[in-house]
Amino acid sequence: MSAWIWGVGTSNFGRQTDKLPAELAWEALQEALADADVAHVDAAFVGTVFGSLGVAQRALLGVGLAGIPIVTVENACASGSTALHEAHQAILSGRYERVIALGVEHLTSLFAGPIASDPTDREQATGLLFPGIYAMSASRYMYEHDATAEDLAAVAVKNSRHGALNPRAQRRRALSVEEVLGSRMIAEPLTLFQCAGLSDAAAAAVLGPTRRGSRDVALRASALRSGTSWDHTSRHVWGYDVVRDTARDAYDAAGIEPSDADVLEVHDAFTIGELVTVEALGVDAEGAAPAAVAAGEHSLGGKTPVNPSGGLLSRGHPLGATGVAQLAELVWQLRGEADQRQVADARIGLLETMGGGTAGLDGNACVVAVLQAG
Amino acid sequence: MSAWIWGVGTSNFGRQTDKLPAELAWEALQEALADADVAHVDAAFVGTVFGSLGVAQRALLGVGLAGIPIVTVENACASGSTALHEAHQAILSGRYERVIALGVEHLTSLFAGPIASDPTDREQATGLLFPGIYAMSASRYMYEHDATAEDLAAVAVKNSRHGALNPRAQRRRALSVEEVLGSRMIAEPLTLFQCAGLSDAAAAAVLGPTRRGSRDVALRASALRSGTSWDHTSRHVWGYDVVRDTARDAYDAAGIEPSDADVLEVHDAFTIGELVTVEALGVDAEGAAPAAVAAGEHSLGGKTPVNPSGGLLSRGHPLGATGVAQLAELVWQLRGEADQRQVADARIGLLETMGGGTAGLDGNACVVAVLQAG
Repeated sequence: MSAWIWGVGTSNFGRQTDKLPAELAWEALQEALADADVAHVDAAFVGTVFGSLGVAQRALLGVGLAGIPIVTVENACASGSTALHEAHQAILSGRYERVIALGVEHLTSLFAGPIASDPTDREQATGLLFPGIYAMSASRYMYEHDATAEDLAAVAVKNSRHGALNPRAQRRRALSVEEVLGSRMIAEPLTLFQCAGLSDAAAAAVLGPTRRGSRDVALRASALRSGTSWDHTSRHVWGYDVVRDTARDAYDAAGIEPSDADVLEVHDAFTIGELVTVEALGVDAEGAAPAAVAAGEHSLGGKTPVNPSGGLLSRGHPLGATGVAQLAELVWQLRGEADQRQVADARIGLLETMGGGTAGLDGNACVVAVLQAG
Repeated sequence: MSAWIWGVGTSNFGRQTDKLPAELAWEALQEALADADVAHVDAAFVGTVFGSLGVAQRALLGVGLAGIPIVTVENACASGSTALHEAHQAILSGRYERVIALGVEHLTSLFAGPIASDPTDREQATGLLFPGIYAMSASRYMYEHDATAEDLAAVAVKNSRHGALNPRAQRRRALSVEEVLGSRMIAEPLTLFQCAGLSDAAAAAVLGPTRRGSRDVALRASALRSGTSWDHTSRHVWGYDVVRDTARDAYDAAGIEPSDADVLEVHDAFTIGELVTVEALGVDAEGAAPAAVAAGEHSLGGKTPVNPSGGLLSRGHPLGATGVAQLAELVWQLRGEADQRQVADARIGLLETMGGGTAGLDGNACVVAVLQAG
């Protein structure tokens, strides 16, 4: 038994205060259902972090899918990819024949500035919110690997060039290293353009158990883990271990090695995240990611393009929608439908999302999935 | 393949501002793990509606269960029973061998009065919050079936008598009809003591695929549906149809009829909810529930006791924890461990939770489960 992606769809990404969350979901769902050429599904798994009560039901009602079992899942930034993982498992077990994975988030209606801290989280109460956690990771990484501020900025520059080619991206302007480093300091060494902004969007996918044609993309494997206690004495920065271990689960299930990957969509909520992640995934050796970025290996046209969509930094990071949006980009890439962003001869795609990480946890959740052209 | 409940546990129910949500979860988890006599599980499904980012991970970290796949699910008032349903399906499919279903909610730290309305829900924006929706149901039910205000109040009286016998209940005082009807009017005809209050609590269960001894309780079936568009022209009040249809799925899967049920834990967030639900479940004929309550049939010692725990009205309604708390009560009943609340010779237990219902939906979600003594 395997699972296939029959169709994908997304809304635009960015500040969309004129639209309700369910309206963004309708755009994604309508595109995915038309792409899959199906009108009915058996169940839906819906990823959202801050989505309000019933948003999933209102979204599915609007496309004629009321009444089916709907399970809304939350796993921090990995909520959308957790919805994908649960949909995948439901297909593999034969529980359902056709399943929707939907992600939806409307952050600009909830937060005026950065996402607020949780008063019941004693670590966050000290000021250690996500920019701070990632800034500590960046400082440690720079110390361990002699990396520079320019190495970090180069990730934002690369992804901004990719995002400029994506008509649905939130940030569509190619940035220079000087612009990235010259933008406002958020949490040293991370400047504004090294942090994903608030975003509103939805993304959807239809999964089924059979291959119906050459446009279907195989979901070879997906794996989910939660972080263990963060080992502060480790040489690895925060989040490395959970990504490495989850990736190993996914590679083993799919029977691939990281060198098999032709294109990646990974979690770059902050620039340092992409550097740590491509190393934890085994695509680059430890400490080697900055040189790979500098050599253009992860750019469109390079050896292993990473985040051709623009990534979370440029396409946007609507938390619950992100994982499914990563999936949509990989499906378009593996079908050869990615227009100006197309990675030549892409056969194997890797998806990675790492969510949260509070109260000393090495990430709340990580999902890694392996996609293959049909 | 079937599934068995190996152990259950809960915290106390009520206003617990001195405890963090994860601390309540630790109490429930520690009791459930000790009851099941297991130290490790393969995965956890966690129900919460308003729980903050990472609450599930912090809860499981605290009992030595970090690192396993954790999926937090939301389905309005059916969040806990959806976690149970997903855990059940994971056992049935052989995906995992041992699974935790956890529910946790800490409402008093989030809301000072009633649960706030959702600004993106256009129906709620008109003032149609849950007390209003249930009040409309109550008025319609009274009209259709010549029921009286006293018939509604009798449900609160019965459940308060049950709750008075439950050492963990939020409201532990037996109420009279006069007290119920004399309490403050919330949404006519529903008075204060006919509405579940804000509650903080957690509940947990350990599920496995084998029967290990006579204390294990079989989970014979569980079913999940989402509401379709509310048919305002139906003779049935809001929520009836989704409960009836979900129950039919569960009965068919378990091979039982409603008359087989010895004890029920059902969704009585408001008094009218219990009357409509026992009819939709087929335990009473349409319009016959008030007479059954008046005759003592649903009281402890009666033919078919309903909500021996005190129900949502008296044990308490910590949204995401509710479904798993209902499960815990049924497990204690079916083991013969319910002390003063014990239903004699209870062999088959029914669990029902109906969550949400906004934007014209006949309920966001409904879960019905069938339990049987081992």
